[in-house]
Amino acid sequence: MNPLLSRRHFLKASTLATASLPFAAKSLFAAEPKRQIGFALCGLGSLSTHQIAPALQQTKYCKLAGIITGTPDKAKRWQAQYNIPDRSVYSYDTMAKLADNPDIDVVYVVTPNGLHARDTIAAAKAGKHVLCEKPMEVSPEKCQQMIDACKAAGKQLAIGYRLHFEPNNLECVRLAREKVFGELRYIEAGFGFAIGDPAQWRLKKELSGGGPMMDVGIYALQAMRYISGEEPVSVSAIANTLDTVKFRDIEESLVWQMNFPSGVLASGNTTYRFNGINRYTANAERGWFGLDSAYGYGGIHGRRSDGETIQLPGMDQFAAEMDDFAQCILENRPTRVPGEEGLRDMKIITAIYESARTGKVVALG
Amino acid sequence: MNPLLSRRHFLKASTLATASLPFAAKSLFAAEPKRQIGFALCGLGSLSTHQIAPALQQTKYCKLAGIITGTPDKAKRWQAQYNIPDRSVYSYDTMAKLADNPDIDVVYVVTPNGLHARDTIAAAKAGKHVLCEKPMEVSPEKCQQMIDACKAAGKQLAIGYRLHFEPNNLECVRLAREKVFGELRYIEAGFGFAIGDPAQWRLKKELSGGGPMMDVGIYALQAMRYISGEEPVSVSAIANTLDTVKFRDIEESLVWQMNFPSGVLASGNTTYRFNGINRYTANAERGWFGLDSAYGYGGIHGRRSDGETIQLPGMDQFAAEMDDFAQCILENRPTRVPGEEGLRDMKIITAIYESARTGKVVALG
Repeated sequence: MNPLLSRRHFLKASTLATASLPFAAKSLFAAEPKRQIGFALCGLGSLSTHQIAPALQQTKYCKLAGIITGTPDKAKRWQAQYNIPDRSVYSYDTMAKLADNPDIDVVYVVTPNGLHARDTIAAAKAGKHVLCEKPMEVSPEKCQQMIDACKAAGKQLAIGYRLHFEPNNLECVRLAREKVFGELRYIEAGFGFAIGDPAQWRLKKELSGGGPMMDVGIYALQAMRYISGEEPVSVSAIANTLDTVKFRDIEESLVWQMNFPSGVLASGNTTYRFNGINRYTANAERGWFGLDSAYGYGGIHGRRSDGETIQLPGMDQFAAEMDDFAQCILENRPTRVPGEEGLRDMKIITAIYESARTGKVVALG
Repeated sequence: MNPLLSRRHFLKASTLATASLPFAAKSLFAAEPKRQIGFALCGLGSLSTHQIAPALQQTKYCKLAGIITGTPDKAKRWQAQYNIPDRSVYSYDTMAKLADNPDIDVVYVVTPNGLHARDTIAAAKAGKHVLCEKPMEVSPEKCQQMIDACKAAGKQLAIGYRLHFEPNNLECVRLAREKVFGELRYIEAGFGFAIGDPAQWRLKKELSGGGPMMDVGIYALQAMRYISGEEPVSVSAIANTLDTVKFRDIEESLVWQMNFPSGVLASGNTTYRFNGINRYTANAERGWFGLDSAYGYGGIHGRRSDGETIQLPGMDQFAAEMDDFAQCILENRPTRVPGEEGLRDMKIITAIYESARTGKVVALG
């Protein structure tokens, strides 16, 4: 097991996370940072436009320094809006030239899943650190190539697991680690939504690698792992597709179960069929706790069996994630969400798909 | 599909249920009933001792008139406590003699699952109506034999689905039928507990027919059916057993999914591994509603996405169930929980076990 994923680590990480939150950072670091880390956004779709670029404006340690896009029109709009010079605008084919641009320290890869290795490896070869959106790629092999490329370049690789920085999720991790309700027994987690536009890349397996399990089920899988603080030893899964026209070669819905070494059982479900599932509940010896909604960009809150609510102040998770990565780079310390964390999820998701295909329980190493 | 299970029926049933509640009955039926229906309890285990016999004391239309037991010591204790004459005490071998006892109208079968057909058929042959605990039996074939025997005898057969009489569950049925939150999309339901004594019959497949799916998962399955108002068209399931000593030939935990004709998806889980899962949530177009806890003898309550709580006054569900059956007999009208309802569940559970064994989706007729 990756030691970064141990119970001990996450407990430590929770503390770090508090220190890295923007509002906490203000008091802890009275002085302005010596320099801001330059981010180039690679892929200017909806997430970059509506979440990441605005979040960059709220960071303390980061600045938007460049863009990488295949669409010249988008480049022009972004240059105008964010005052980006011509020399910091790239296409996917010209990423090697990033090597000559000292303004850019990090490439944030926000392209479709199946292009993450291509773009991460190109960025690493150009000597840049990489922050890559989840899911990391479409296969464990691709994830390993990304890890190897960044290691060879001596650069950091982080995966965009923003909830590792989200206070309500961290509070649930605390309730689990401190055994506030006793030993954990069971975790139930689900995330799904009604997918729209049938032409989008999420529905094309070669770009997405799979259906809702890859896209949003991964959040429920993550919750099972960070709440239990363990790695699953076996998984079983059922895929379920009614609309075989829209969902040609990916699952429409999927339910899975995992066993953890301590005996904790976890049940998950994910779907592209309907809205409204965005939650997890952890059952322990003497009670339960959980979030609903659990995974959004905001509005996260939850309940405990003793009647208390879980509703810590929200923050911009993307800003927190980028500021943390920038600090890791500035202070030369490892990120808490490294490529190995993404690889681990990809191995589990691959096992989940194998179980759904074969109808057998799949053991995990 | 059994027409009794249609949306229209259950809506009607909800109204009937309200009328059949003890507190409502008092105003609707000012006069005392002409006569009380005599119940013989068949099987004097924990459920009979702690729930059904006390409930009989609260009924309006029923009385405890006899007992059937294989344990002479139990018979003596019950006779003393409930003033039961020697002529109304039977063993499983002497049930044919029930035919000569006019004090007994109904045999309430509370033996282990795998003995329900034996006892139901014996009671029917002796000319008695039968109320049989859930699950109805251990196979659809056995269920059909029970239905046939009661039909041949011209007697009613009801299954002990007490939640069909429970106000909070009926309120959720109303929310679904009246589409208060729009069309249903998804139902999530689970029920489990940590099983104790390793010597009990529930752990012996020949008596139980299966693990927690048969015993408590059936409540979650029932919820999916009465909330959706539909019959599933396909099921898929995963069984999961860690303790293979205690759970030799039955599942320890199981998760399943079902598709309904309207497109509603349902995910269920059940376990003998831990306590704390006793709930369902129905997600609809514009919100959700559900119960937690959902299936107990008391303390049932729930929530709605609009912030309202669901917390109708509880009542003795066993008393309501028996009073309803007594009224059905007195008024010569069909029960809302007939043998066909139990057979339907048994067919679905059989398909669930088949899916868990084969890893394939199983279609239902």
